[in-house]
Amino acid sequence: MTGKLYGIGVGPGDPELLTVKAINAIKKLDVIIAPKTEKKDGSVALNIAKEHIRPETEIIYQVFPMTVGFAADDTAWQNNKKEILALLEQGKNVGFLTIGDPMFYSTYIYVFRLLQQEKVEIETIPGIPAFCAIGSATNTPIVEGDCILSIIPANMPEERVKAALKTCDNAVLMKVYKNSDEVIDMLAAEGLAKQAVLASRCGLDDEVIIRDISQEKGRKLNYLSTILTRKDK
Amino acid sequence: MTGKLYGIGVGPGDPELLTVKAINAIKKLDVIIAPKTEKKDGSVALNIAKEHIRPETEIIYQVFPMTVGFAADDTAWQNNKKEILALLEQGKNVGFLTIGDPMFYSTYIYVFRLLQQEKVEIETIPGIPAFCAIGSATNTPIVEGDCILSIIPANMPEERVKAALKTCDNAVLMKVYKNSDEVIDMLAAEGLAKQAVLASRCGLDDEVIIRDISQEKGRKLNYLSTILTRKDK
Repeated sequence: MTGKLYGIGVGPGDPELLTVKAINAIKKLDVIIAPKTEKKDGSVALNIAKEHIRPETEIIYQVFPMTVGFAADDTAWQNNKKEILALLEQGKNVGFLTIGDPMFYSTYIYVFRLLQQEKVEIETIPGIPAFCAIGSATNTPIVEGDCILSIIPANMPEERVKAALKTCDNAVLMKVYKNSDEVIDMLAAEGLAKQAVLASRCGLDDEVIIRDISQEKGRKLNYLSTILTRKDK
Repeated sequence: MTGKLYGIGVGPGDPELLTVKAINAIKKLDVIIAPKTEKKDGSVALNIAKEHIRPETEIIYQVFPMTVGFAADDTAWQNNKKEILALLEQGKNVGFLTIGDPMFYSTYIYVFRLLQQEKVEIETIPGIPAFCAIGSATNTPIVEGDCILSIIPANMPEERVKAALKTCDNAVLMKVYKNSDEVIDMLAAEGLAKQAVLASRCGLDDEVIIRDISQEKGRKLNYLSTILTRKDK
């Protein structure tokens, strides 16, 4: 009997924001694949889940190079796939843990696609995305009523970011770290700066919450920084 | 000692998608405010949480009229607020349960704002939004990499919907029920129809998943219907 691949969202950081379903799945795992990236996602996700991981569960670190123009035929990725397939063929339950939600801006999506081609049994368990946790933790309604929410990786080309900011009422800016000064200017130009809240590592011990982002130019931000905002009415 | 107000996201429908934090809060409640609307949100949320509600927890139904141009001075809303404040003053822990996430298109946002003005102690506990559960349940990556996701209530003016569809890569259409034929046409015009997945009541017993929405014109949909889609590349 072959094993099953579980893609498990462990939520934004607070271990209490794990779901019952995620916990039950984590307890069944024989192996956990932890992505080893320069961003340390893998170890953050493992840390969130740690109290539910059985001592006998094996942790295997895999490097998933996230180059621009990600290609599924990349050798590292193919080797990772082969390793996971071999584990499944041995009848092992293999888990891939992701911060937030596994189908929402996650490395898991690429892993899922690679393995889906191989007709592997896969169960994906959703998790709470960071922006939802930030809304609750900072008393900031994310979006309501008849309003459009755009979720925008801040490192996209400026023209694309500006166009999306124009057509929405509320916005979530993700990955606000490399170009935060430019992002603050773009938000101000669209009337989106005043009501902005910036949060880094929300729910973790070193969380940072900033309410007046216009004062924050030049600040160095963590790569897990997110802005929630809405247009002035 | 005054009580505390809990806004609790119970997730999209599957009781296993409750978080540990939500369950712990539900167990502490003396009173649950259940919104009584024509859409039956309140009873759906109660049903998701039911196995964690103590027998001695009182359920109070309140009507929250959701008229166009909602005004916080509406008499029904003010009466609800007074009733909640009186319970908090009696030292009771009062919970407001919401499907999905409480800060994401929820009636709770208005309740939160009304009570926040009164300097009440409030804790909001995030939940998994329906669109995340649909991504996992239907094996549909929601959004990845450097892509913009727009979340759009389908009942908004057509011009606004079209403009937002133009500037995004991926889209989530919410409340697709009154004008689903028009929505399907707008998606097709922007190259967003082919990869669309429509889900109604995902995770509930009567869930419906539709993969070729272009064949679905004229179909009557549940009001909890959501479309996930992405542009053809």
